[in-house]
Amino acid sequence: MASMKTVRDIGEFGLIRQLAKHIPLAGDDCAVLPGGGLLTCDPVIEGIHFLPDTPARRVGWKAMARNLSDIAAMGGEPRYAVVSLGLRPSTPVRWVRELYAGMRAVAGQFGCEIVGGDTAHVRHEQFVVVTLLGHADRPVRRSGAKPGDIVFVTGPLGGSFSSGKHLTFTPRLREGRYLARYAHAMIDVSDGLASDLHRLVEASRVGFDIASAKIPGRLPGALTDGEDFELLFTVAPREAGPLRRKFHEIGRVIQQPVVLLDGRPLAAKGYDHFAQRR
Amino acid sequence: MASMKTVRDIGEFGLIRQLAKHIPLAGDDCAVLPGGGLLTCDPVIEGIHFLPDTPARRVGWKAMARNLSDIAAMGGEPRYAVVSLGLRPSTPVRWVRELYAGMRAVAGQFGCEIVGGDTAHVRHEQFVVVTLLGHADRPVRRSGAKPGDIVFVTGPLGGSFSSGKHLTFTPRLREGRYLARYAHAMIDVSDGLASDLHRLVEASRVGFDIASAKIPGRLPGALTDGEDFELLFTVAPREAGPLRRKFHEIGRVIQQPVVLLDGRPLAAKGYDHFAQRR
Repeated sequence: MASMKTVRDIGEFGLIRQLAKHIPLAGDDCAVLPGGGLLTCDPVIEGIHFLPDTPARRVGWKAMARNLSDIAAMGGEPRYAVVSLGLRPSTPVRWVRELYAGMRAVAGQFGCEIVGGDTAHVRHEQFVVVTLLGHADRPVRRSGAKPGDIVFVTGPLGGSFSSGKHLTFTPRLREGRYLARYAHAMIDVSDGLASDLHRLVEASRVGFDIASAKIPGRLPGALTDGEDFELLFTVAPREAGPLRRKFHEIGRVIQQPVVLLDGRPLAAKGYDHFAQRR
Repeated sequence: MASMKTVRDIGEFGLIRQLAKHIPLAGDDCAVLPGGGLLTCDPVIEGIHFLPDTPARRVGWKAMARNLSDIAAMGGEPRYAVVSLGLRPSTPVRWVRELYAGMRAVAGQFGCEIVGGDTAHVRHEQFVVVTLLGHADRPVRRSGAKPGDIVFVTGPLGGSFSSGKHLTFTPRLREGRYLARYAHAMIDVSDGLASDLHRLVEASRVGFDIASAKIPGRLPGALTDGEDFELLFTVAPREAGPLRRKFHEIGRVIQQPVVLLDGRPLAAKGYDHFAQRR
């Protein structure tokens, strides 16, 4: 019976698909508001996105940078942030100050200001939810990829957890703004290349033919580790020339709505919060 | 040593005061952006704001209505909402659908649209963080109360948990917009009248002389229960006449920065998430 299914049964994508029926502006990294406003929020949770002993400054950096990455994926600029914290009463005040220092450090690099927030008590897992308000003159969506487009990523993929990159990465805002002139479709690689290619398939109703030898990173981690926060985008072949000197070309957009790796179908086995953990 | 203090030691107000040093636009129910934009977020957490057996539709209603109340307290209009959910994998999909139905029900009454969101996995307490973007032509702040002003509340106080009002209340958006023309200072009563009067003291650098007999509600609950979500506001004496027919006059603004109840000092013993629970 459909109504007895759990969040684990249908997974994160299934849940988002269910919810999206009721969310008219959903389906991109940010909601695009009339006039070019961008609104996005993303939770960061202890035990999932960081560990109890992760330095608070890095937790703050990550919580802010993930959201900045969503603005980058639309080709936008961040402006204002508000922060909701779930804190255990035993947490040192110093931890919270360090958390804010980390958030401010990365937000400040990109002209984004923390303007408010609220806190509440939790018994178990602490969490940080950053919401960003930004702007894009020409927001780049996930839905614009066209057959024949060239597919790029902005940097190396895979190993983000083992290397610690997931806590220290620089959101690709400069690249995103530059690419807003060229990209037909764009997304940040948060759940792994395989998974995020499938998201573009769903939004653009096209497919991808990817060459494993061209992916910047070791397989299979480069396909599935997630939390890379590089931008994945497609451009018309005539625009690809100068981009080849800056970014990594990994394949082409095809008509058939499927992801092929070296000619063979590739499943969306990226990171799913609900399926992979208990 | 100051740096070893915990969140419990300094309490919610202490923490917010610490954080506010770094948040230039903080100190009101919403951050006020250039051009009159309002941005606010507020977490709702299982075990604190709702119980595991609270119907999901009511959890959704409350999570959205609390934030709408923050917009009301500025005399503003809500426009767009994004939602972050922390969900256990065992949660039925139906629960999430009902949660959204509750959020949409109250948001829709006030022309506010849910435009996006994100979900992640928790092991223990589920949470809902709604962020609202709104607008006010003349945002009413906490800082404008003047000695001699008349103090009002929009409705009854106290008993919100025992009556279930905390799950079903109507945010005072219509009242807030009407009052934007008159109010010198305004706040929604979320942590109890005593506590929220002290917030106005801090923001306006004035005091309050309140008559217990005029408070609409039974003491001491009307002072300290919290989650009333009525508006507390001050107006010039010459504007008070017609407001006396609609709202409850409870006292006057005085010069000395203290809260008096029937002439005796009243402490800020409202609801503090960190101090009162373990």
